[in-house]
Amino acid sequence: MGGFGESTAVRRRGDGRYQAEIDGNYGFAEAINGGYLMAVLLRAAIDAGAHPDPVATSANFLRVARPGPAEILVEPRKGGRTTAVARVTLLQDDLPVVDAQVSTGALDADAIAAWSGPPPPPMPPVDGCLTFDAGGENRGFADQVDMRFDPATMGWLDGQPAGSPQMRAYFRTREPYRPDGILLALAVDALPPVVLNTGAGGWAPTVELTWHMRSVPAPGWLALHGSGRLVSDGWFDEEVEVWDAAGRLVAQSRQLARIGRTER
Amino acid sequence: MGGFGESTAVRRRGDGRYQAEIDGNYGFAEAINGGYLMAVLLRAAIDAGAHPDPVATSANFLRVARPGPAEILVEPRKGGRTTAVARVTLLQDDLPVVDAQVSTGALDADAIAAWSGPPPPPMPPVDGCLTFDAGGENRGFADQVDMRFDPATMGWLDGQPAGSPQMRAYFRTREPYRPDGILLALAVDALPPVVLNTGAGGWAPTVELTWHMRSVPAPGWLALHGSGRLVSDGWFDEEVEVWDAAGRLVAQSRQLARIGRTER
Repeated sequence: MGGFGESTAVRRRGDGRYQAEIDGNYGFAEAINGGYLMAVLLRAAIDAGAHPDPVATSANFLRVARPGPAEILVEPRKGGRTTAVARVTLLQDDLPVVDAQVSTGALDADAIAAWSGPPPPPMPPVDGCLTFDAGGENRGFADQVDMRFDPATMGWLDGQPAGSPQMRAYFRTREPYRPDGILLALAVDALPPVVLNTGAGGWAPTVELTWHMRSVPAPGWLALHGSGRLVSDGWFDEEVEVWDAAGRLVAQSRQLARIGRTER
Repeated sequence: MGGFGESTAVRRRGDGRYQAEIDGNYGFAEAINGGYLMAVLLRAAIDAGAHPDPVATSANFLRVARPGPAEILVEPRKGGRTTAVARVTLLQDDLPVVDAQVSTGALDADAIAAWSGPPPPPMPPVDGCLTFDAGGENRGFADQVDMRFDPATMGWLDGQPAGSPQMRAYFRTREPYRPDGILLALAVDALPPVVLNTGAGGWAPTVELTWHMRSVPAPGWLALHGSGRLVSDGWFDEEVEVWDAAGRLVAQSRQLARIGRTER
């Protein structure tokens, strides 16, 4: 398949129904990436609605997605001049794979922030960062997305986790694609789990992920700053802030996930 | 009506349908509090499911709720040993008022955190904090909930906002009620909007609010730490961390809201 735009394309079938083809190149060994699935369902939500930007997306990951056909169902719940809300479901074999609630709006690309919190601590320049190729079955994702990891957060690869939940990387697609709200959906779920830096291993299935689009991203690298607040009772939170090349906060996410389980 | 338990009670009608009575005492001038509405619909979600704790709740506020009868519809989406997921809708006059996605699980009250982030900066003791009674039409909420505000975040009352989005308070019900997941739903949406401290005024309608329950709260005061990262283009985020009397992080929320609008 082609670039990110083609891999997330949807075809309108009428009555709020859309057809998509899940691209296995956005998979890891055990499942298709959740951010990619959100990107696909957001294409349908935006096509069905009146506003261009996915300002709020809450997703529950119910089943493991597989490469191949998928259906997306968009149910409008409230229209509005500023915001429209829909329930959006991605199905395979007639079973819900992702349930989402999506609020769309129109962000002003030239808006000046009335107030902005401090930027996150600086990352090393792109050239001072590491590439990371999980290889084997995980090869596909690294072929789609170019990520450069802050070395301070990659000690877990050598058995030396940083000791606190964190992960940072620069992010862009390998095929040219101008950053937009759809790409931000991929960005907020692209980092390896932050708990790899507290010594946890294995797959960390996301139970719930919500993200907010805050600004229209500028062209260029995105910087992903992942962190967490609590690892307890088999659960952890992971927050990702996405900053664009112009130094603006363009997306915020938080997910609640399980440690070291294979059930999803 | 009686205490918080009685005001949030639901009656099972079968087929995932519940009846509730929205208590106007949890209202402000313009609308019923969103945290209270979440508490009511979570009673139904937990009654309908297999797990006791609302570990993840994402809510979209579609219409203004009014005192009086409401119906709650619980649609199970996925069962599981660890987590169950449902779509939950609160309706009045057959129109959806709140759409929610709820994941329930069972948290171990005795769990020791594997890793915990630093606690928030200390608040003054309860006796050094301020009460705040909006009076008039807003009287009801203050009669239900006892909140003591950190004076450093209340300068906006005297026309001297702190300059950054923040709000902090101790929180408990006036009628004795042992803190649980249902009360945490009220707690995460109980603070005045953090943007009052950036000089914004008026009602700040929530578009989307997601919160995660992280631990079973200990009896006693809860401490609410509200903050934000960006105020831009008429939108702001508000994050609330809830810490219990034992010094544990028991809930995390983030909402995306509009500044100074009356449409909801």
